[in-house]
Amino acid sequence: MRPSGRAPDQMRAITIEPNFTRHAEGSVLIGFGDTRVLVTASVEERLPPWLRGKGEGWVTAEYGMLPRATHTRGNREAAKGKQSGRTQEIQRLIGRSLRAVTDLKLLGERQITLDCDVIQADGGTRTASISGAWVALRMAIDGLINDGKLTADPIRHQVAAVSCGIYNGTPVLDLDYPEDSAADADANFVLLDNGTIAEAQATAEGACYDEEGLLRLLRLARIGCTDIFAAQKQAIGK
Amino acid sequence: MRPSGRAPDQMRAITIEPNFTRHAEGSVLIGFGDTRVLVTASVEERLPPWLRGKGEGWVTAEYGMLPRATHTRGNREAAKGKQSGRTQEIQRLIGRSLRAVTDLKLLGERQITLDCDVIQADGGTRTASISGAWVALRMAIDGLINDGKLTADPIRHQVAAVSCGIYNGTPVLDLDYPEDSAADADANFVLLDNGTIAEAQATAEGACYDEEGLLRLLRLARIGCTDIFAAQKQAIGK
Amino acid sequence: MRPSGRAPDQMRAITIEPNFTRHAEGSVLIGFGDTRVLVTASVEERLPPWLRGKGEGWVTAEYGMLPRATHTRGNREAAKGKQSGRTQEIQRLIGRSLRAVTDLKLLGERQITLDCDVIQADGGTRTASISGAWVALRMAIDGLINDGKLTADPIRHQVAAVSCGIYNGTPVLDLDYPEDSAADADANFVLLDNGTIAEAQATAEGACYDEEGLLRLLRLARIGCTDIFAAQKQAIGK
Amino acid sequence: MRPSGRAPDQMRAITIEPNFTRHAEGSVLIGFGDTRVLVTASVEERLPPWLRGKGEGWVTAEYGMLPRATHTRGNREAAKGKQSGRTQEIQRLIGRSLRAVTDLKLLGERQITLDCDVIQADGGTRTASISGAWVALRMAIDGLINDGKLTADPIRHQVAAVSCGIYNGTPVLDLDYPEDSAADADANFVLLDNGTIAEAQATAEGACYDEEGLLRLLRLARIGCTDIFAAQKQAIGK
Amino acid sequence: MRPSGRAPDQMRAITIEPNFTRHAEGSVLIGFGDTRVLVTASVEERLPPWLRGKGEGWVTAEYGMLPRATHTRGNREAAKGKQSGRTQEIQRLIGRSLRAVTDLKLLGERQITLDCDVIQADGGTRTASISGAWVALRMAIDGLINDGKLTADPIRHQVAAVSCGIYNGTPVLDLDYPEDSAADADANFVLLDNGTIAEAQATAEGACYDEEGLLRLLRLARIGCTDIFAAQKQAIGK
Amino acid sequence: MRPSGRAPDQMRAITIEPNFTRHAEGSVLIGFGDTRVLVTASVEERLPPWLRGKGEGWVTAEYGMLPRATHTRGNREAAKGKQSGRTQEIQRLIGRSLRAVTDLKLLGERQITLDCDVIQADGGTRTASISGAWVALRMAIDGLINDGKLTADPIRHQVAAVSCGIYNGTPVLDLDYPEDSAADADANFVLLDNGTIAEAQATAEGACYDEEGLLRLLRLARIGCTDIFAAQKQAIGK
Repeated sequence: MRPSGRAPDQMRAITIEPNFTRHAEGSVLIGFGDTRVLVTASVEERLPPWLRGKGEGWVTAEYGMLPRATHTRGNREAAKGKQSGRTQEIQRLIGRSLRAVTDLKLLGERQITLDCDVIQADGGTRTASISGAWVALRMAIDGLINDGKLTADPIRHQVAAVSCGIYNGTPVLDLDYPEDSAADADANFVLLDNGTIAEAQATAEGACYDEEGLLRLLRLARIGCTDIFAAQKQAIGK
Repeated sequence: MRPSGRAPDQMRAITIEPNFTRHAEGSVLIGFGDTRVLVTASVEERLPPWLRGKGEGWVTAEYGMLPRATHTRGNREAAKGKQSGRTQEIQRLIGRSLRAVTDLKLLGERQITLDCDVIQADGGTRTASISGAWVALRMAIDGLINDGKLTADPIRHQVAAVSCGIYNGTPVLDLDYPEDSAADADANFVLLDNGTIAEAQATAEGACYDEEGLLRLLRLARIGCTDIFAAQKQAIGK
Repeated sequence: MRPSGRAPDQMRAITIEPNFTRHAEGSVLIGFGDTRVLVTASVEERLPPWLRGKGEGWVTAEYGMLPRATHTRGNREAAKGKQSGRTQEIQRLIGRSLRAVTDLKLLGERQITLDCDVIQADGGTRTASISGAWVALRMAIDGLINDGKLTADPIRHQVAAVSCGIYNGTPVLDLDYPEDSAADADANFVLLDNGTIAEAQATAEGACYDEEGLLRLLRLARIGCTDIFAAQKQAIGK
Repeated sequence: MRPSGRAPDQMRAITIEPNFTRHAEGSVLIGFGDTRVLVTASVEERLPPWLRGKGEGWVTAEYGMLPRATHTRGNREAAKGKQSGRTQEIQRLIGRSLRAVTDLKLLGERQITLDCDVIQADGGTRTASISGAWVALRMAIDGLINDGKLTADPIRHQVAAVSCGIYNGTPVLDLDYPEDSAADADANFVLLDNGTIAEAQATAEGACYDEEGLLRLLRLARIGCTDIFAAQKQAIGK
Repeated sequence: MRPSGRAPDQMRAITIEPNFTRHAEGSVLIGFGDTRVLVTASVEERLPPWLRGKGEGWVTAEYGMLPRATHTRGNREAAKGKQSGRTQEIQRLIGRSLRAVTDLKLLGERQITLDCDVIQADGGTRTASISGAWVALRMAIDGLINDGKLTADPIRHQVAAVSCGIYNGTPVLDLDYPEDSAADADANFVLLDNGTIAEAQATAEGACYDEEGLLRLLRLARIGCTDIFAAQKQAIGK
Repeated sequence: MRPSGRAPDQMRAITIEPNFTRHAEGSVLIGFGDTRVLVTASVEERLPPWLRGKGEGWVTAEYGMLPRATHTRGNREAAKGKQSGRTQEIQRLIGRSLRAVTDLKLLGERQITLDCDVIQADGGTRTASISGAWVALRMAIDGLINDGKLTADPIRHQVAAVSCGIYNGTPVLDLDYPEDSAADADANFVLLDNGTIAEAQATAEGACYDEEGLLRLLRLARIGCTDIFAAQKQAIGK
């Protein structure tokens, strides 16, 4: 039995509240159960120097966790003066995932930054970030299209992400914190709406897993992402 | 005329949503109009080394602004590797303001950290932070009292803060961003519910002001804080 | 009684030694009693990138305290790798105060940096810094005028600053260290020679103060600044 | 055709030179073709404070790339003052991989640090690091056993890692730099000698991949790791 | 001819003003011509953790240059967030030089820090720092002896330092800035009052020098240090 | 007797293995006994901004020590976030030494960086670095000449360095670690093949030394450098 009483292939409630803040070109508050992440998409009409002059744009991400998003207060990274390895790993993953569905040439020489700030953490903050970032990016790009700055849509697919793991010997979907901290294996899958895989990461925390285990986790992820794709569509009104 | 159409002595709508997040011992989302700050109070039963052994506790604050809380995206301080002078100045002010109403001896050897994170900025983020932090602190201390960890209440007063300024020659209450960026003088007052002043800061941005101007700003602040004190009480159910 | 035996409205001896060092365009060693601050004004004929092209100049300040300016040795900020929040708060205040009396358009596209380094500390280092910085700035601008680089004088007023506080229940002028560390309230006023106020900051350290208290502190500050304005004039030979 | 002329399932030459340096408790220079990594294992008989008192030890890793290990010189991370996100991601992966085969309780309250420094880079530096780190760890633990400090062997398995990718539409084993920089997908697998998986990471760089693609990459990795396990055994004389 | 008109073996005026500041246990303002360095000695009755428990003390130094000590303003190291290589090199030299004349066992488990802050620079700041630091150290140790905290004098010798160089082909003593920036060789010698050498550093800036050149520089340094030893004695009233 | 049984004027075995890595324009692994340093020379056809436009090039050096190059593991400077004072002092010395034999005008507007990374340390790492750096520089410049990018050779001399010290009262050549940690004086000489001196540094660690001692150390250094010059020539095939 899962601590939450969920079935092994059951997602937590997915909530996506668009326009949670008003200044950003795209903004959502996404929830996977008690995990809540504020994602904003910021469009800048210029690129950092090392990306200029290639006739294409860039999509990047930054990730942060508010100090008391967690059960016990963590140190503020701005006060410590550096981002942890975990933070950097996550924001690199978010950026790659969104670039996997974006045609950077069609985007043109502009940068879109996806800021993912965890308001409340209960497992799955990086997968909620990716899933919410797609909505924020979609909103920002719709804005560029509406403003006539883009004529062709650079977004080729939906992208979503979900965590899976082996908990008490059973593969389960969408780990919450109690499961995450006790799982034998912890995986994150980033999937496209055409069924292909942008990123698969599966880490043994206790006993190592086998090929069959990896495939069962992937199949759970497909179930979860189907739900997320639907929630994303609803959030953007389609 | 003010850009928002408000009367000179009119506050923006004050909204205080308690328990906005669930892990912290106290938590509110406070709004002064479009300015929204998430404040959490975290109780730790130990002090940093330099504060130990004095038989008293500590109340401190940290402040941050999400990168896209503002009209244009600002750099993430965690990524830059340091907090700006402005950030440090604000978080020092918040900490002092809350300590002004707390009996640290009664608090005992524990630390309460008030994290103030600006979700959306439209002027007055530091005063909203202070005003919300009092509610979060109140909730955290009520928890300690309910748990039997405190027998006497260390909070001696309510504290609230509001900005005032001289805009187009007229003293006005609770500056929003368009006023703040054009005001001749910009003041922040931190007041107690007994009418005394914990902190007064009044800075000329354009023409310098005189004693009468300072007093008129203070009197506006009293009007605003009366509203905030009422909203604080309502938020804690009193 | 004050520890120094001074009357409540009595400044410490004000000493201003111009040309204390020889390389800077302006330089003074200012003393308020045992507090001694070396202030230099450095003129640079170029602006940092973010200030260029607006047809105006910039006046800024940096502040530092030699490690053994104080009773016990403090850490060297350069060795720690960052400036404290207190340092940043003070240098921002100094910069604002001097800009309050400078016409940046008349200054032209150049930058003047006021370096305030505390040689010996006995309370009031920030107010001595501001008061001395005006003299150093005056000297530097006189140099620009003499060299024909400026035809109109960009300095519109004298500016001076002094601390006041409530010590043992009595408002007193120009706190020294024993008073500063025991005062109930601690205020800094930055005043212009026309009687207007550039900055007022009054912080309760113990009991909070009331409007009457604030006004009495301001009136003491006027007395102190009158003395400082005279000493500034004498230092520049007027 | 692969640029190197290798068959799709062909590893580069694996070279493991034990005792490359003399101070460390374990030391190897491992080569996967032209990629060469110096790995040392350092035993410290004390743990960092946050790991003490749990009756178990710790295995961790640090990773670095000499500035001119690469085709063009990269900045020295020590001079820049921080480790890149890539570096941190890699060293976290190495540490997890080695802990996956170590019984930390049997290790006792000591720490073993695996320093992986890339002398020359031609793709696969993280997988060579993991594969070499196992040998260095084995040597260090053999030393502890020989010295009578350990009575039971805390190493439960061999662990090895190899990269695979989809290059020109074909899944290939052990990417070198020309392949790595042009591959559509880039995967790293960390495998145990009992056939289980400690870590799988597969990232689409161009077109996303499907389940069959993931499995084909995994099967290539099994082929490569079989070779590496043999080379590890030979290096430790078994 | 030297720019200053001095003879090749002629020191600039040496001025040592003891008790320049009042909080430190020892304090001097030392001048070599226009070079002026404020040196304070701070006694702390505890050692940093890594020096404790050896039954001996420590003498260390820190060095800084005020931003406008030089002809053009340099960046403030505290603002840049790190000390330059030059700064670190100099403060390590000062520390070694003073430890060369101090019996650390006799000093007991306490630390003396020599802060050398350059008020005005005209060449020779490191040698003036060492020469002044000896006087400050002497004063601090005399204080410890007078307070009965030391019964035996841990200072075994006087130590002084001076720069020499080859300027326009001629070996000259005590380089000022115009000479220093144009010299072919630049040397610093740290000498004891018994004629022995604590440190010799001679660097070719243009043409390399030979053994005879090195010896001639050393002989000039002996002449200069004789003058400095006399000035040190006079400063401490002997 | 020396711990190693060497005669006082006897160098350790000098080994220079050219082309140790393949990407750099010049590369050697140099050994002085058990000390082994990997030196690479990297040519960049552009200068950092502050060196541009003078019609000349730049030669600079960086130095690092792998964490377990030493008997006990040292902290990784990249992880600590700064280079130690010792590291900076050494890399400044290496850079100066190589510039002493290079005609920067003939080099043209390009930069050569010498990265010296200590693989294994047993005393003399900075002198081995300098001696190896000359070979790497020679190789890089030969490459520029062969490519027709240089027509005149900017290298004017060979440069080599060696340490000497007073160990148990006897001047000895080329200190290894046991000698280095116990010597009364520790000197490093950087010599040119024409017999002149680029840099002399002699530091008393215990008893101070006299002029005769300094000369005896210098003469030992000449013996050592003669051997190193021969090994350098052999390494470049002359």
